[in-house]
Amino acid sequence: MPIITLTTDFGLKDHFVGVVKGTIYKELKEAIIVDISHQVSPFHIQECAYILKNSYKSFPDGSIHIVGVDSERTPEKTHLAILVDGHYFITADNGVISLITEEVKPERVVEIQLPNTPETSFPVLDVFTRVACHLARGGTLEVIGKPVTNWLSIKEFVPRVIQDGNSIAGCVIYIDNYGNVVTNIHRSLIEAYRKGRKLTLEARNKKLTEIYEQYSGLINFDLPASQRRGPGDLLALFNAAGYLELAIYKSNLKTVGGAATLLGLDYRDTILINFS
Amino acid sequence: MPIITLTTDFGLKDHFVGVVKGTIYKELKEAIIVDISHQVSPFHIQECAYILKNSYKSFPDGSIHIVGVDSERTPEKTHLAILVDGHYFITADNGVISLITEEVKPERVVEIQLPNTPETSFPVLDVFTRVACHLARGGTLEVIGKPVTNWLSIKEFVPRVIQDGNSIAGCVIYIDNYGNVVTNIHRSLIEAYRKGRKLTLEARNKKLTEIYEQYSGLINFDLPASQRRGPGDLLALFNAAGYLELAIYKSNLKTVGGAATLLGLDYRDTILINFS
Amino acid sequence: MPIITLTTDFGLKDHFVGVVKGTIYKELKEAIIVDISHQVSPFHIQECAYILKNSYKSFPDGSIHIVGVDSERTPEKTHLAILVDGHYFITADNGVISLITEEVKPERVVEIQLPNTPETSFPVLDVFTRVACHLARGGTLEVIGKPVTNWLSIKEFVPRVIQDGNSIAGCVIYIDNYGNVVTNIHRSLIEAYRKGRKLTLEARNKKLTEIYEQYSGLINFDLPASQRRGPGDLLALFNAAGYLELAIYKSNLKTVGGAATLLGLDYRDTILINFS
Repeated sequence: MPIITLTTDFGLKDHFVGVVKGTIYKELKEAIIVDISHQVSPFHIQECAYILKNSYKSFPDGSIHIVGVDSERTPEKTHLAILVDGHYFITADNGVISLITEEVKPERVVEIQLPNTPETSFPVLDVFTRVACHLARGGTLEVIGKPVTNWLSIKEFVPRVIQDGNSIAGCVIYIDNYGNVVTNIHRSLIEAYRKGRKLTLEARNKKLTEIYEQYSGLINFDLPASQRRGPGDLLALFNAAGYLELAIYKSNLKTVGGAATLLGLDYRDTILINFS
Repeated sequence: MPIITLTTDFGLKDHFVGVVKGTIYKELKEAIIVDISHQVSPFHIQECAYILKNSYKSFPDGSIHIVGVDSERTPEKTHLAILVDGHYFITADNGVISLITEEVKPERVVEIQLPNTPETSFPVLDVFTRVACHLARGGTLEVIGKPVTNWLSIKEFVPRVIQDGNSIAGCVIYIDNYGNVVTNIHRSLIEAYRKGRKLTLEARNKKLTEIYEQYSGLINFDLPASQRRGPGDLLALFNAAGYLELAIYKSNLKTVGGAATLLGLDYRDTILINFS
Repeated sequence: MPIITLTTDFGLKDHFVGVVKGTIYKELKEAIIVDISHQVSPFHIQECAYILKNSYKSFPDGSIHIVGVDSERTPEKTHLAILVDGHYFITADNGVISLITEEVKPERVVEIQLPNTPETSFPVLDVFTRVACHLARGGTLEVIGKPVTNWLSIKEFVPRVIQDGNSIAGCVIYIDNYGNVVTNIHRSLIEAYRKGRKLTLEARNKKLTEIYEQYSGLINFDLPASQRRGPGDLLALFNAAGYLELAIYKSNLKTVGGAATLLGLDYRDTILINFS
């Protein structure tokens, strides 16, 4: 039985998640349902895509991912079921698919057209759970709707290589639970243009010259503890997904704050890399 | 194996949910436990009942619903196990049962009387998990305690038809994750009294004359995008449960705010419908 | 198949929890994964240990507990896998083990040394999930690494018996979802020194002379309802774990506030018991 995951902006208080799970279990007693997140910022397609892109591949091939963000069907927004990279996604045509398939071409995309489904304000419940159970039972995409070749394309902000390859201008694409600032600058881009040169990272009025592999990279363990850098200090690292990230070592949003608040950085703000 | 659901005000940080799940798994290795919500406002019976009423029916018949809100046993508040509408509920006699059984008469209600259970401050752990596992193994209610025919009755706020059937006065019964304002006025009540007349909805100083079926109902897709109503605009709709709801299209509580904050509406505030 | 639990400071919004679960399911199709908490305050070892200590025993023997707080490996902080009290823990050597094993000596502790694991910033994903799946399949600790006999020791704040046994000075060790203040003073310690005497509890400028067994202990049900103490009143009780706790009856942090905010008590603040 394939896993069915849920990524929504429903929050965890209301009955929305419960009713969706109940409906799946009612149709598919043996279902394995895994929450990826229910705390996507309401209607925030980029955030939703970021969370999905960074987690779907970890699930077994054939997993079915329900996307419950901005999912109402309208004359200009259809419902889609997609097979890409060995995974199924069920979503409204709200742009999330264009963000997930930036690097992998989808194998098949169909516009969902189930019989006897009225337009409702809760299509995750009324439509997506039915599609998910159909796929989980081994059903095909072809039965669900007609193939389409176009879908809404949202462009992720892409870092620009500027100054004849001497600089890279990227931006903030996500701020995580620790207040860490994730940028769209991938390790591979920096490596392609660095060519053994020194590097300076500029974020607001801060400059950093080192990019670590771990948060604790900023600590020189050869020094006595009292002389080391540590909690509260700013660092840059390539995170587990390979992206350049700014962090405050052992930050706590409720006490000392995180990199985002301390640097005054928000979604879409610019981060600059200079080689010299 | 029936599903065991949890609806509590325990929150998600403390060990309370973990210890309850562990205890169930220890007694019943094959248990299927589903969280409905752990973020009911502390001791808020109406909110708890609202969440349960809107989700329990989606689960398979025979599901067992543990209610962990205001559950301490006292000389005036017993513990109950109920079979209603094909579902089991395990709860303190705190009023939640009267709200859930407003429209469906319970088949059987017993006062829980387990041997060797001291009065504790954590009866969900000490009593409810044992009852749930007993029922999940196919045990009967009769073994758990003695039948009762009375329980605490809390009256839900009921909308009133006033002005010789020319108006309906309802109130706010829930505010959801998006700040949407859910009222106690059901579609069927409006349809019964409207009789083809025009309708005006009054909430604070706002008036609306249209009730949509979807959030995107407020958009006239025949107009060019620049002339349409859209994000930030107020609308009324019948939500997935059939209740009149006020919403801000694509609201986000953290940025633009939701209908509740923008209209200044809170739990129990009045909403008026006038027919003319 | 043993249960795998997760206790982390990852929060519930980001992809961290989803990617960890996906990775476990990919390796171990039949895994049973239970969230204990993902809302430990970032890097807060004591809080993490408190949540774990109060929940792990409720799970079946042989359960595997992944600890995802301050888990990066450094020259001074190894990764450990522990068998204690019939349960496995997988954690960095960040002190959490010393807190969990205060009362029970661990059977076996190994330093995790998996082949082909680079140092990363996400060891819960890259290391702990692999160890958990190995143990869940019945693998031994010996295969994972070499036995160690030393680990970082953090001392829990221990209450002091003072004034020739006439007083006990303890402190706040946790504040729960209701704002209830949990102290490190166990029922057994009070019973050992009370010797039939009267007791006064001092917290800030408040004094209490009674410690109840339930929250509703403060209500005298022989009095008419109008003359009873009730919601909003302060009480002390021994909580389900046996620790002295201060609570506001039916507190709600969002409205009337909890004991912590009303008394101005925070983590580590002093609570005094006097016998007379």
